Amino acid sequence: MTTRWKLTIEYDGRPYMGWQRQPHGASVQEEIETAIAKFSGETVRIHTAGRTDAGVHALGQIAHFDLEKNTDPRTVREALNAHLRPNPIAILAAEVASEHFHARMSARRRHYLYRVLNRPARAALDVGRVWHVPYTLDIPAMREGAGHLLGLHDFTSFRAAECQAKSPIRTLDRLDILENGANLDFVVEARSFLHHQVRNMVGTLILVGRRKWKPVQVAEALAARDRSAAGPTAPPDGLYLVGVDYA
Amino acid sequence: MTTRWKLTIEYDGRPYMGWQRQPHGASVQEEIETAIAKFSGETVRIHTAGRTDAGVHALGQIAHFDLEKNTDPRTVREALNAHLRPNPIAILAAEVASEHFHARMSARRRHYLYRVLNRPARAALDVGRVWHVPYTLDIPAMREGAGHLLGLHDFTSFRAAECQAKSPIRTLDRLDILENGANLDFVVEARSFLHHQVRNMVGTLILVGRRKWKPVQVAEALAARDRSAAGPTAPPDGLYLVGVDYA
Repeated sequence: MTTRWKLTIEYDGRPYMGWQRQPHGASVQEEIETAIAKFSGETVRIHTAGRTDAGVHALGQIAHFDLEKNTDPRTVREALNAHLRPNPIAILAAEVASEHFHARMSARRRHYLYRVLNRPARAALDVGRVWHVPYTLDIPAMREGAGHLLGLHDFTSFRAAECQAKSPIRTLDRLDILENGANLDFVVEARSFLHHQVRNMVGTLILVGRRKWKPVQVAEALAARDRSAAGPTAPPDGLYLVGVDYA
Repeated sequence: MTTRWKLTIEYDGRPYMGWQRQPHGASVQEEIETAIAKFSGETVRIHTAGRTDAGVHALGQIAHFDLEKNTDPRTVREALNAHLRPNPIAILAAEVASEHFHARMSARRRHYLYRVLNRPARAALDVGRVWHVPYTLDIPAMREGAGHLLGLHDFTSFRAAECQAKSPIRTLDRLDILENGANLDFVVEARSFLHHQVRNMVGTLILVGRRKWKPVQVAEALAARDRSAAGPTAPPDGLYLVGVDYA
């Protein structure tokens, strides 16, 4: 009789090749699976709500795994955190989940944040944690461009070539751009995203902000259903998986 | 004929022994003075609004120096930032100042932020940039305790032994505690502070939050005029010099 565990995880993506276990190089998945093995003696495979890329951060990544060991939430959280040291990975919560819970398949909504630092000087405190864009940006134009992406669309133009999703159709529920001094926060929500979708949308909207593109060209890029029609992929540094909602 | 330059500086305090130049070990002052020498060929001494300790960060430190070279603000900012790479130090602004301007002596008000991460799990993303306090905190009691520190007082109990200020009398204008999820931000303002004053006040208020102290004991510690009567010094990790106001 195993127990299904749900973890809420914060991590700094900089030292890792991404969430997913890789033959060569550190991954968040491997570090957590190793910590579980050290704590329980069991070799488990953890499943995540979303496999973040190299350099992408998480404030509230969700994962699940099954464990035979009989234990309690506090012990799981504290033992994993102890074994994860000194990795920049923290288990914020460990909870017992239903046997039907699946971190990826049960997810109803994913929340991402993309942080841009918009000032002439590069980041000193947030190196690797923001995208530094030193150019003057037309924020109202960016918001107008973002409006074209909301709703149900074929997002082929904003999808990485290596994306494994069966369909390029997604519904974008939110893409707000919040200003706070030199910080520009892109707040993005959808049930699910294509590979690189958030970074490709941000990279495209920065073209609008720099007035290299008119806002309507975002709609044209979307309609083209061709990756080469949209803008460049924003770097991973500014991207955070903030949280995942379940039913 | 020299020009007096005013710099606004952001830095990550982690790699440095503090602002002040040290015979052994890196300092923010030395890195900036070296960058100025590389840019201008001139050996200058920079003066700061406040010498931050080892591990303390700045979002808006202010410094001034005199330069013979005839140049412009944008060139100064960009040249210094280029020479400062890869140090986590960024010149946010360089401005021509009056010959009477003095970063320390002209300062009318200093703004500090102290960040506490209040949750069971340690920081993953903000290692070295917050003080992790895993205990349940009574925030209203902390605010009551903070109220006793506001105004004009002899802050001897909250002053480091090595403090060089002539008088222990200071006027604390603001000590607000803002909650944002697991983040607890202490927003602190005064014309000037004694050495370690902010960290000693925060360390003491955490005792109140943990209910080891009653709020009124903060007033008693203040009245004792004895460093051993107050609480421990909070770690440098959570402290940020946010900005300095001038007339």
